[in-house]
Amino acid sequence: METETIAAISTPMGEGAIGIVRISGPEAVQTADKLYKGKQSLQEVDSHTINYGHLVDPKSGQTVEEVMVSVLRAPRTYTKEDMIEVNCHGGLTSVNRVLQLILAHGPRLAEPGEFTKRAFLHGRIDLSQAEGVMDLIRAKTDRAMNVAMNQVEGRLSTRIQRLRQLLLETVASVEVNIDYPEFDAEEITVQMVRDKGGEVRRDIEQLLQTAHQGKILREGLSTVIIGRPNVGKSSLLNSLVHEEKAIVTDIPGTTRDVVEEYVNVRGVPLRLLDTAGIRETEDIVERLGVQRSREVVAGAELVLLVLNYNEALTEADEELFQLIDGQEAIIVVNKTDLEENVDMERVRTLAGGNPVVSTSLMKDEGIDELEEGIRTLFFAGEMDSGDMSYVSNSRHIALLEQALRSMDEALSSAENGMPVDMVQIDITRTWEILGEVIGESVQDSLIDQLFSQFCLGK
Amino acid sequence: METETIAAISTPMGEGAIGIVRISGPEAVQTADKLYKGKQSLQEVDSHTINYGHLVDPKSGQTVEEVMVSVLRAPRTYTKEDMIEVNCHGGLTSVNRVLQLILAHGPRLAEPGEFTKRAFLHGRIDLSQAEGVMDLIRAKTDRAMNVAMNQVEGRLSTRIQRLRQLLLETVASVEVNIDYPEFDAEEITVQMVRDKGGEVRRDIEQLLQTAHQGKILREGLSTVIIGRPNVGKSSLLNSLVHEEKAIVTDIPGTTRDVVEEYVNVRGVPLRLLDTAGIRETEDIVERLGVQRSREVVAGAELVLLVLNYNEALTEADEELFQLIDGQEAIIVVNKTDLEENVDMERVRTLAGGNPVVSTSLMKDEGIDELEEGIRTLFFAGEMDSGDMSYVSNSRHIALLEQALRSMDEALSSAENGMPVDMVQIDITRTWEILGEVIGESVQDSLIDQLFSQFCLGK
Repeated sequence: METETIAAISTPMGEGAIGIVRISGPEAVQTADKLYKGKQSLQEVDSHTINYGHLVDPKSGQTVEEVMVSVLRAPRTYTKEDMIEVNCHGGLTSVNRVLQLILAHGPRLAEPGEFTKRAFLHGRIDLSQAEGVMDLIRAKTDRAMNVAMNQVEGRLSTRIQRLRQLLLETVASVEVNIDYPEFDAEEITVQMVRDKGGEVRRDIEQLLQTAHQGKILREGLSTVIIGRPNVGKSSLLNSLVHEEKAIVTDIPGTTRDVVEEYVNVRGVPLRLLDTAGIRETEDIVERLGVQRSREVVAGAELVLLVLNYNEALTEADEELFQLIDGQEAIIVVNKTDLEENVDMERVRTLAGGNPVVSTSLMKDEGIDELEEGIRTLFFAGEMDSGDMSYVSNSRHIALLEQALRSMDEALSSAENGMPVDMVQIDITRTWEILGEVIGESVQDSLIDQLFSQFCLGK
Repeated sequence: METETIAAISTPMGEGAIGIVRISGPEAVQTADKLYKGKQSLQEVDSHTINYGHLVDPKSGQTVEEVMVSVLRAPRTYTKEDMIEVNCHGGLTSVNRVLQLILAHGPRLAEPGEFTKRAFLHGRIDLSQAEGVMDLIRAKTDRAMNVAMNQVEGRLSTRIQRLRQLLLETVASVEVNIDYPEFDAEEITVQMVRDKGGEVRRDIEQLLQTAHQGKILREGLSTVIIGRPNVGKSSLLNSLVHEEKAIVTDIPGTTRDVVEEYVNVRGVPLRLLDTAGIRETEDIVERLGVQRSREVVAGAELVLLVLNYNEALTEADEELFQLIDGQEAIIVVNKTDLEENVDMERVRTLAGGNPVVSTSLMKDEGIDELEEGIRTLFFAGEMDSGDMSYVSNSRHIALLEQALRSMDEALSSAENGMPVDMVQIDITRTWEILGEVIGESVQDSLIDQLFSQFCLGK
């Protein structure tokens, strides 16, 4: 159990109406009380109450901020420890100053994710739920948020726990059989492993089937729009963005010219890469150079290649087709409001298996077909599963794949008449691997690393 | 009185641990209760309590978020209305979704500053206090925050109210004298206006004396660093920034190449302009061109001109001296660790009345003198007035200047034996002008305009 009291700013950095500094740990209430001047001592107020007052620097006697202090006593809190939330006027200076004042009176600065880590260490949530919390914060679309919310609520955990329970029962039964040699241990073992183990296997497989979609929902489908100048790339971008305001984010640690923009196309979150390039110079190749463009395109999960319906295919167009060779792509033949000068037959040939959609972005025609094309490409017929629990996290996917392999080994060992304790080892390993999903039998270093990816104050 | 219920996101936009959506108005609790699933109905819980639960979309039955809902009943709230604060996981999607859900069930989106506007309209705070709230959020240094905090706490208001009281008493007494013609009304009036009016006048003057410093504390002292390439501009910048992490802000609405950086030099907040230029190309003139540089320099309140101790003055140096002609400037002769090749005599001549400081930024020498130079230039001997209430807001300064003129007229009218009711008009006008500072007798349009400068959700 942690015993240090920690504090951090929990609202995003920036000018806002409200800023919050959180404190958690055994000294939380006492620390806040040293700095608080209000009607009543914070040590005397009820739990889960909001208390108006001022923070006063005990040394100088100076009023630092006008605050509302929430007192939340263990165990009904986020961390299961005593917690304080100091709600102040949300300026950068204000929030920082409140934090500094608190840090000068006992608590240490919390590490990123440390509040949630404590919730995990104190058993309020398991690891997959904690990871869901992070996904919830990062979610770029409603569906991504639903997936994360399901995970936070423990749906994945419940399924994993059920599987582990089945595996445990199998092991236990095998054990019993070994202990009673009057039965034909091997025969019974094979039968049981086939039954319960087969059920576990099917369920893991089912979970993995959601992984592709889950990952797209969680991370967005990285998409790049390419095409010669003036074919309508920025019009296409604007059409896609049109419906809802796109979320634009700089990728941290890179220069400003890599910009991501998220748009939601019928439930598919597109993570549009290099939209800055499109908005500015109209030409990714001109902007980034051939080599870099090739990398960007190769890294994309979906390429939208825009052609001009009104012009014959040029050498540059053909080169772009080569660039997208082997990629998931949709060919958008734009400007159908003008005369047909493009060789549509040739376009279809070059497109290979990739869908070709004709549009007049100027006249707002063909957008529906394009959006439907994107949807079916990635979620063919499986999209009304709003309540389904997706596996979306790469760590979980990798573990489930391992578990599947390990289960397969157990099954084939059993079928091939291997010794019972060999089968047991494989089953136990499957049980352990599944345990890692929810944070049991996980190494401390992994836990530290996972939580360090959280934002500060969470 | 407003009767609409309003809602807005009150935390800064961005990924954070906590996001807050605020609701205020008669329907606040009822609206939140429609969406909330927890142990108890929000309509039944006590005021100023925090309630754990979930937001559920009543249409789809889907859980939208895990939340802590604060219930704050009128009148002990920020707006003096019933208020709800929904505390959710702080992602962009999450917070937006919570807001959308709330807006779909009654409340309308709040305008910027509308919560604080209601606090003003309901008489919880006056206009200068409301303006202090905005300053508090925007404060870039601790001192600026103290100034704002004093204003929020009503120190300026108290002083203004006292002055208005004095003026009111003067008018009332003059009135009495007019009603009793057996006294020599004029003589008594002159005496009284001289006494009380003089006191008012002195106090306004005193307030205005704080205005220069107050404005600098509030807005920062716009500062530009100029000098030929390689004289040590970025070293100077780094030295100034060294002590505390500078706050860098993009100026909204401009291209990214105008960047402000705030540093705190012995209590003087420097707003360093065009630091991007210094960090990148080392030369403001090269970067911005001569014309634009001239404008930037002319717009600055302080120029730091850096010269090379190790080199003779060049034509470019002399041109820079011309550029800063008539400006408040400090001449920094850097690289004193190297041989003296600069003509210090000539530097002093060119500097005119501006202070000249020698430094070796490489060896960390001379920084103290420079910082002290900056401090004395702007706060000569007046800096330990931490508790003083500064007038810092341009609107207040303009009104106080008007009030001073109007008071002067009253005084001279009285001295020159003008009719008593003429004197009374001037005094009444002074009273009205001072009233505008705290928001009495202020036009609605001005109020709308002032609050529209607030951030959303405040």
